[in-house]
Amino acid sequence: MLIRRLKQNSDDFDVQLKRLLNREDDQRRVTTVVSNIVADVRHRGDQAVLEYTQRFDQRVLNSIRDITIDHDALQKKLREYESAAQWKQSIFALKQAAERIQDYHQRQSLLAWSYVDSHGNELGQRITPLDRAALYVPGGKASYPSSVLMNSIPARVAGVPHLTMTVPAPQGELNPLVLAAAAICEVDIVYTMGGAQAVAALAYGTESIQAVDKIVGPGNQYVAEAKRQVFGQVGIDMIAGPSEILVVCDGKTPVEWIVWDLLSQAEHDEAAQSILLCPNVSFINEVEKEIERVLKTSTRAEIIRKSLADFGALIEVQSLDSAMEVINQIAPEHLELSFDEPEKFLPNIRHAGAIFLGRHTPEAFGDYCAGPNHVLPTSGTARFASPLGVPDFQKRTSLIRCSVEGAKHLASIALPLAEVEGLEAHAKSAQCRS
Amino acid sequence: MLIRRLKQNSDDFDVQLKRLLNREDDQRRVTTVVSNIVADVRHRGDQAVLEYTQRFDQRVLNSIRDITIDHDALQKKLREYESAAQWKQSIFALKQAAERIQDYHQRQSLLAWSYVDSHGNELGQRITPLDRAALYVPGGKASYPSSVLMNSIPARVAGVPHLTMTVPAPQGELNPLVLAAAAICEVDIVYTMGGAQAVAALAYGTESIQAVDKIVGPGNQYVAEAKRQVFGQVGIDMIAGPSEILVVCDGKTPVEWIVWDLLSQAEHDEAAQSILLCPNVSFINEVEKEIERVLKTSTRAEIIRKSLADFGALIEVQSLDSAMEVINQIAPEHLELSFDEPEKFLPNIRHAGAIFLGRHTPEAFGDYCAGPNHVLPTSGTARFASPLGVPDFQKRTSLIRCSVEGAKHLASIALPLAEVEGLEAHAKSAQCRS
Repeated sequence: MLIRRLKQNSDDFDVQLKRLLNREDDQRRVTTVVSNIVADVRHRGDQAVLEYTQRFDQRVLNSIRDITIDHDALQKKLREYESAAQWKQSIFALKQAAERIQDYHQRQSLLAWSYVDSHGNELGQRITPLDRAALYVPGGKASYPSSVLMNSIPARVAGVPHLTMTVPAPQGELNPLVLAAAAICEVDIVYTMGGAQAVAALAYGTESIQAVDKIVGPGNQYVAEAKRQVFGQVGIDMIAGPSEILVVCDGKTPVEWIVWDLLSQAEHDEAAQSILLCPNVSFINEVEKEIERVLKTSTRAEIIRKSLADFGALIEVQSLDSAMEVINQIAPEHLELSFDEPEKFLPNIRHAGAIFLGRHTPEAFGDYCAGPNHVLPTSGTARFASPLGVPDFQKRTSLIRCSVEGAKHLASIALPLAEVEGLEAHAKSAQCRS
Repeated sequence: MLIRRLKQNSDDFDVQLKRLLNREDDQRRVTTVVSNIVADVRHRGDQAVLEYTQRFDQRVLNSIRDITIDHDALQKKLREYESAAQWKQSIFALKQAAERIQDYHQRQSLLAWSYVDSHGNELGQRITPLDRAALYVPGGKASYPSSVLMNSIPARVAGVPHLTMTVPAPQGELNPLVLAAAAICEVDIVYTMGGAQAVAALAYGTESIQAVDKIVGPGNQYVAEAKRQVFGQVGIDMIAGPSEILVVCDGKTPVEWIVWDLLSQAEHDEAAQSILLCPNVSFINEVEKEIERVLKTSTRAEIIRKSLADFGALIEVQSLDSAMEVINQIAPEHLELSFDEPEKFLPNIRHAGAIFLGRHTPEAFGDYCAGPNHVLPTSGTARFASPLGVPDFQKRTSLIRCSVEGAKHLASIALPLAEVEGLEAHAKSAQCRS
């Protein structure tokens, strides 16, 4: 099977859709492995980090210095790469993308405010950045410079003074553009380590690695589980699962465009999910044929075939209107509305990480340079979660300042409530001021 | 020992402070117990929920109906209580508090916005409420009507259409004011269940209990661990630990006021933490004497004594200025600045859940009725977390709509980046539009 075909009006559509969306795997083993690594790093610090990194990334290491790139070294590398013909154009594109991402995120900052109530009490909300944030960047085949921009820029816009990046370097190999992107974002320090050991080291600190306040960025299932386990000690962004796209098309966008949009998700990862909703069955047939055709020469055909066969679907819906129900059930990470006047349908869409409106807006633009973040809630978590953004690197603090008169008024409300809750000291503490 | 005494200028102050703040207990046993309950509720649904609730809360139950109070039944209860002389004044105070809390939270809503870039691409941020939220309210001795207000009102302000409340009823007993508060906040359905089984049922749903999108509210360590385990399936607010207060006083506030402020935290829970920072040692001596004195007649002396002995501290600091360093190390949940012109010190304070400014602003006002939320980041998590608020019940969605011309521009940036990341389909998907 190239890709499964479903019909919205079939009797068991709901059951089939549910099965399609259930990509959960057995967690128990991962949980145990990770909790052992986290405990070991807490206990043995640097030495544990070095041992795991040597073992998992097949490197020879003597000290944390061997996995450290500081700010100056990073800037030096950027200058080197920029003068190399091989990287020049990419670095220019990265800088253009960074500027657009910054433009978008600047609008996201939480706002401070205050007001005075009718009794003279001043109430407010204060916004401060986190002190130290760390971004986890996957290594190996999924080491993307664009992810460095997407994770760092919101932190920078929020005003985080110290930014750490961690990226594994299997066999010591690093993507130069990942380092270039880190330099463009003025990352303060880079550690070339990954996995649960990196998350544990950044959450608890070691002799040589300073603990941070929040860890963001996607990783494999060990990284995700480690983030879950250290949550509370530090903040985390979200538990990211495999990426997914939901394309809704009326059948009038060029077949080739829709096919590349679907495949741009499938090519990420064998666990990625690409789904098309379309009311036009002959268009769906053409899409299926075109996928077959382009896969003959595609450089990533193997990954794509597995992703499509295991998790992909072409779904015939009754109409664009009825597609909206399916969208809300899926709560997709990426939603592409490839038809005219997509804005008319927006009020009916309740859940999506990012919405790409119209035929000229492929997800790929969002991945790189449109401006919004590409770290988005996956696996239906758009029901309750948001794209990574500036608010993830800021915190609110409540401010309360009572006037002498205002305190008397508040005491008159607090006192009966404290009494009924049986909290004597609360009552007395309020009463003192009345 | 009534309460430990520390000096900021002693040699081992940092070590002592660290030990004081480390309230961690062994988690492993809790983790296993909770993961078994969660798995059981997922597997056996209603039946498992009923069995655990019977066992842990010592109740006799036949069906989920026995633990359900729907919207109409809840409103009926409110009318009953309001006409009872016993509850009248408290319910009036609850309504006054609810109004003030709503006033404050209305200012917190995230904002939607959009703009058009110089290439005609439209970029924006959309804000939508969650569909279904649940609030966990502790039962027994810590069942507080004020917590119902603090958890429900932000959800209501955010526009969440369906609100579930869950509260354990040990031996079938419920606090009438907890139900009254739920009715005031127009909670849609109440389940009288608690513990890990309640969290699991709300996260995954059962035959009779509909799953929600987010679970908020404090609970014991089993509830906290259950929330950690279901995170990802649903959203959660935070992993709340025991409550704490940090009072900074110049020694000129009446001793009695400061003592009640400290005890208002200690009386919550044996694991609660009350700390005073003061540059005036004779004031500290008076505080200690006054605590001894009031404890002789205090109704909650036993809890307070244990909390103070295990976790409390009176700390002599060199000056108010140098107290600021200690504040940032502690990152307190509640921070009381009991001295003149506290606003002058605000720029030096980086981390706190809520700040109470001036001698007339005790924490107790914030617990009940000042306006800001009383669900606050505990145990130093104010380094990265915020008070519960309207943003916790909203999500951002990114919007991108390219013009024909704008798409060409974005393709010129995306193409080299997709190529260098080796993502062919991303490149083709961008290229189609150029």
